Amino acid sequence: MDRIGVGLIGTGYMGKCHALAWNTVHPVFGDVPKPRLVHLAEASAPLAEKRADELGFEKATGDWRDLIDDPEIDVISITTPNKFHAEMAIVALEAGKHVWCEKPMAPSFAEAEAMAEAARQSGKVAMLGYNYIQNPMVRQIRKLLSEGAIGSVNHVRVEMDEDFMADPDAPFAARNERANGYGALDDFAVHPLSILQTLFGNMTRVLCDMDKPYADRPVDGGKRRAVENHDMASVLFHLHEGISGVLMVNRTAWGRKGRIALQIFGSKGSILYDQERMNEMQLYQAPGRPGEQGYRTILAGPQHPPYDRFIPAPGHGLGFNELKTIECRQLIGRMRSEDTLGIGFADGLEIERTVHAMARSFERGRWEVVA
Amino acid sequence: MDRIGVGLIGTGYMGKCHALAWNTVHPVFGDVPKPRLVHLAEASAPLAEKRADELGFEKATGDWRDLIDDPEIDVISITTPNKFHAEMAIVALEAGKHVWCEKPMAPSFAEAEAMAEAARQSGKVAMLGYNYIQNPMVRQIRKLLSEGAIGSVNHVRVEMDEDFMADPDAPFAARNERANGYGALDDFAVHPLSILQTLFGNMTRVLCDMDKPYADRPVDGGKRRAVENHDMASVLFHLHEGISGVLMVNRTAWGRKGRIALQIFGSKGSILYDQERMNEMQLYQAPGRPGEQGYRTILAGPQHPPYDRFIPAPGHGLGFNELKTIECRQLIGRMRSEDTLGIGFADGLEIERTVHAMARSFERGRWEVVA
Amino acid sequence: MDRIGVGLIGTGYMGKCHALAWNTVHPVFGDVPKPRLVHLAEASAPLAEKRADELGFEKATGDWRDLIDDPEIDVISITTPNKFHAEMAIVALEAGKHVWCEKPMAPSFAEAEAMAEAARQSGKVAMLGYNYIQNPMVRQIRKLLSEGAIGSVNHVRVEMDEDFMADPDAPFAARNERANGYGALDDFAVHPLSILQTLFGNMTRVLCDMDKPYADRPVDGGKRRAVENHDMASVLFHLHEGISGVLMVNRTAWGRKGRIALQIFGSKGSILYDQERMNEMQLYQAPGRPGEQGYRTILAGPQHPPYDRFIPAPGHGLGFNELKTIECRQLIGRMRSEDTLGIGFADGLEIERTVHAMARSFERGRWEVVA
Amino acid sequence: MDRIGVGLIGTGYMGKCHALAWNTVHPVFGDVPKPRLVHLAEASAPLAEKRADELGFEKATGDWRDLIDDPEIDVISITTPNKFHAEMAIVALEAGKHVWCEKPMAPSFAEAEAMAEAARQSGKVAMLGYNYIQNPMVRQIRKLLSEGAIGSVNHVRVEMDEDFMADPDAPFAARNERANGYGALDDFAVHPLSILQTLFGNMTRVLCDMDKPYADRPVDGGKRRAVENHDMASVLFHLHEGISGVLMVNRTAWGRKGRIALQIFGSKGSILYDQERMNEMQLYQAPGRPGEQGYRTILAGPQHPPYDRFIPAPGHGLGFNELKTIECRQLIGRMRSEDTLGIGFADGLEIERTVHAMARSFERGRWEVVA
Repeated sequence: MDRIGVGLIGTGYMGKCHALAWNTVHPVFGDVPKPRLVHLAEASAPLAEKRADELGFEKATGDWRDLIDDPEIDVISITTPNKFHAEMAIVALEAGKHVWCEKPMAPSFAEAEAMAEAARQSGKVAMLGYNYIQNPMVRQIRKLLSEGAIGSVNHVRVEMDEDFMADPDAPFAARNERANGYGALDDFAVHPLSILQTLFGNMTRVLCDMDKPYADRPVDGGKRRAVENHDMASVLFHLHEGISGVLMVNRTAWGRKGRIALQIFGSKGSILYDQERMNEMQLYQAPGRPGEQGYRTILAGPQHPPYDRFIPAPGHGLGFNELKTIECRQLIGRMRSEDTLGIGFADGLEIERTVHAMARSFERGRWEVVA
Repeated sequence: MDRIGVGLIGTGYMGKCHALAWNTVHPVFGDVPKPRLVHLAEASAPLAEKRADELGFEKATGDWRDLIDDPEIDVISITTPNKFHAEMAIVALEAGKHVWCEKPMAPSFAEAEAMAEAARQSGKVAMLGYNYIQNPMVRQIRKLLSEGAIGSVNHVRVEMDEDFMADPDAPFAARNERANGYGALDDFAVHPLSILQTLFGNMTRVLCDMDKPYADRPVDGGKRRAVENHDMASVLFHLHEGISGVLMVNRTAWGRKGRIALQIFGSKGSILYDQERMNEMQLYQAPGRPGEQGYRTILAGPQHPPYDRFIPAPGHGLGFNELKTIECRQLIGRMRSEDTLGIGFADGLEIERTVHAMARSFERGRWEVVA
Repeated sequence: MDRIGVGLIGTGYMGKCHALAWNTVHPVFGDVPKPRLVHLAEASAPLAEKRADELGFEKATGDWRDLIDDPEIDVISITTPNKFHAEMAIVALEAGKHVWCEKPMAPSFAEAEAMAEAARQSGKVAMLGYNYIQNPMVRQIRKLLSEGAIGSVNHVRVEMDEDFMADPDAPFAARNERANGYGALDDFAVHPLSILQTLFGNMTRVLCDMDKPYADRPVDGGKRRAVENHDMASVLFHLHEGISGVLMVNRTAWGRKGRIALQIFGSKGSILYDQERMNEMQLYQAPGRPGEQGYRTILAGPQHPPYDRFIPAPGHGLGFNELKTIECRQLIGRMRSEDTLGIGFADGLEIERTVHAMARSFERGRWEVVA
Repeated sequence: MDRIGVGLIGTGYMGKCHALAWNTVHPVFGDVPKPRLVHLAEASAPLAEKRADELGFEKATGDWRDLIDDPEIDVISITTPNKFHAEMAIVALEAGKHVWCEKPMAPSFAEAEAMAEAARQSGKVAMLGYNYIQNPMVRQIRKLLSEGAIGSVNHVRVEMDEDFMADPDAPFAARNERANGYGALDDFAVHPLSILQTLFGNMTRVLCDMDKPYADRPVDGGKRRAVENHDMASVLFHLHEGISGVLMVNRTAWGRKGRIALQIFGSKGSILYDQERMNEMQLYQAPGRPGEQGYRTILAGPQHPPYDRFIPAPGHGLGFNELKTIECRQLIGRMRSEDTLGIGFADGLEIERTVHAMARSFERGRWEVVA
């Protein structure tokens, strides 16, 4: 594999993020072939051309299928709205392309299953955009847990909160439609689930409550339209190995901007983490001199790979976008048969399965078994 | 009411705390009669005499009923183990004494009901030791909510965590017996419930999960005994007025020492609070200049009554014990027919009712209606 | 010494604080005789009577010399404005009373010297109200330093900031008169100096800059009067044993309410502390596993004596007033010839000497030797 | 200007940082021509070739003068050790290249002057690598100050601390030689000075103390060599417009990893900032409802340009490297005659002037006028 031919579908929030990752993965890591940014697809040809110029792609098209047919492309980034993921990913995989698809997989579980099946049959790399697990601090937590730094884990709490839908007078949006999913579960819960899966594996049973703080939202013409899904979800859960926990997500949480707060309790200590301060984590270890124990605030540094590939000095801080660059390196690693950290379609399907179990639990008002 | 005659039963953790409150309430507030510390009861006469001398009480006894019969006593502080609360409180009330009883009311709901009934019939003041609601910061939160500072509240999360039972090798204790209650629910959950009741009223329905991280604990002779109740509880709940929320309590949470963390989300902002930093609260208000919003860390000061009665300068900090002094002032106020903040037996009964509904929910694995 | 007879002069901010300490020292510590609150002096007899009733003193007077003559008094708390300290303390000591005098000693160095001399000659206990050194967290820092927890200390920074004079439109006050001292140096710098002395000993040389942010302030009648002293001081200093450092004080620091922030750097670690979060300290120790070092936030608890005398559980928090209770216990200890922690008049004189050297340095614009 | 031809000298810490900036500035900003990475120089040809391949440069050389002669190069990044800056920058400017040179300018003031003069005469853009001023949070502070958000500024404190030289047993390094500068002044002080200059302009007078915590360090063969410069400096200063302040720098500060802590006090409020949490700033504004004031923690977001060019959502966080990308955009802007934020050689010379005045002050033990 001399160079990697890259295709990109979509250039919104995540599309640009993928493009930046493809632009930087080689100079940052130095141990992977330089990607060739071959072909970019957008909703229209003129927009595609504009973006291709900005983001450094050679060719542009208004029809994403042109990327499928492009023999110069090895891997396709899919960053379109969720409802398009399944078709694009399946077609791409069937055409022998590797796929890097943004989360979540698809609105329906059946589609997600089809994606996972297509990936399995293709033998190609199919990875999902769960970038938060790539944070060197999350990896450090994983290392600490595996070394028994806090003993045997028995309880976990995780919260994901933002406030982009907190204003009751914000207009009704696509996000508020049932067709676009359950609400906070699809939007947010999958991220904490990706972290939990990376650290502990999957959930076995869940009990979910959901809520919508605002029953309706303004639409054009001075009227209001009923909100169709839920901006908050709170979930009691059990993981394999006897770990209990609580998952809380809220996209109407005024004041929170990018919070993913994790609390992990074990028999010998505990660990705290908050994505809003993504270059820190906190470690409490019970053994020690009396009166000198406390949470240690560890700042990210070169001892937490691959931070060292970005900056040689500790405490200087990575940014959100750089997590995607790390993810891109993992993807390339998989394309080269390295054993890297990432959530492929098979693992992603378990996340989807869990989300649907949560929704079912809410409807039925009772515990649901996930598997 | 010239002077207030005080009796104290019990001199452990809370007993000393009550004694300090009775010693300081007059010099701190200046607007209440000086209490006369009349009579102290402990398990034995010699211990009672020792403590009476230390804590400033005139008389001492090994039999708590001597306090009931003492005509010089107006009010009795009950700080014994929970299982004695009901009998002592009821006898005292029937004898015409005011009662200041530590939380929770009693292990069984029937006993708690009897206490509330005795209080009602006596016409005496019967207050419970829910001191956290007396924190000037909690009162400030209450004021902010009532003024609509964060709009209409729609979601609440509250956590109470300590680590005094976090060591799996700590010996089996009375706390681990079922006879002493459900575990974290009695020990901890009642405190957050007292805060929620003060701010929002009572819960309507709950769904509770509980867990015990350590199945057994060492007993004398090198053997181990099965733990009979649960050190953790996680509860989904609904309050009146459409507020949903999550309550989490854990007395095996390594690293947490006195955490009672509150997150309140509303339509115009949010409020955060953590008892481990009891002289602070955080306020986020949505309206404002773009790019200048954020959580404001407000330090306790004389603008937050009755902080001013302790210290005239802001940011100097009250301590945990001083909350009890404030509570004592509320108690005296009620004895003088002032309308003060505190949880009487009738309100306390609602807290007990909620805890029992939680336990029921756990047993049945489903939502339970509280009332 | 069966009981201790106490006199109190002054009932303002610090007067009440002393009174609370005298009321609680016995029930809190249990190992000292119960003080008898004998006699209270205020500016007028009626005020004295009112306060004596509130604060629990038996007798009241409008003439402080009545306390000197009262044979029932063993020790006198002096909490009047600074300019009265010298006369009162000297007369009291000469009359054979122990003295507990608020900081600083006196506006002029000569007066402070006379106070120290009177104390020396009297053989009585003469202690100053440097309560911040009594914080169990500061004592913990002292213990850590003495055990070499951060190796050999080489640099120290300390800041004390409040904002009670930050408003440029606040009226001209006595504090702004030169007759009342240098400004922030007397008001604030002595507190950090008491901490530095407790931890490291005295300064050897200093270089001081001072500033006044507002040249004049409003007086009655719509005019303005020139401010005569300085609200800020910044000082480079050297301590014995080769430690360099910086002291910064500012009583016009908007946003700061009770900040005394300490940073101590050594050859093996560092320590942080901030009085605004007085129940915490932070410890960084260099040795350890790579990637796991960080500042440990230690919460005050029973392992940090005498916290345990107030509360048996960790993380529940002491308050500012309780530091005075601890100081009171130290004072009583000295009266009983125990070796306790406190700043007597001899040590206090070194603090005064340092402050005057700072003022001299500012006038001369150069380094000044302290001794 | 169709495309920008870029040359890079040096590929260490800052060299890679420049390379990443050149790789990302176009896809991030979209409004500048795509740079062409033409030519890279390193100490040897083989190393240069290796790095050129990793960092995406077309040509490689072991002789930096080849870049000067390369007609395809418009701008040269100079990231070599400080002692080479002057010669390289002057030759490049004289050859008609724009220059982007890492800080500080040069070890001697004469060299720095020559650089500034060369820049002036060339008419080319000559910018220095003071990337911290490019942080959207620092720009937000600048905006707030210019709008009078905290009134008239009267006092500033700034600290820069890291611990890469904190270990007393770390071997003697080039950094410890006098020939490499004063120590912490060159290494660190210039960064806070760049921020102060950006916010307030230059210093007028300074008083500096310096210290070396470890007199000697190990060299090969088991011996020790005397440290020749100072790892700490503490400076009292005055800025134009009557602002006083303190600057403190320490490269032996155990526990600090990338701290640049700023405290700005004004007549109506104050501002705090710490580079270790580079996506936050704190604002205190005095006016407001009593009891509701406090420091507001503002998280970086799209309202703080050019954060929006990287991420559309608030609170997700930029990284250290992305500051260099912003700086690169400023550099390109200047090449296109836009009025952008950056420190050119003329402004940089004032920073050098200040540092040398500090060193002089330390030698003479007195205040020094800067200009």
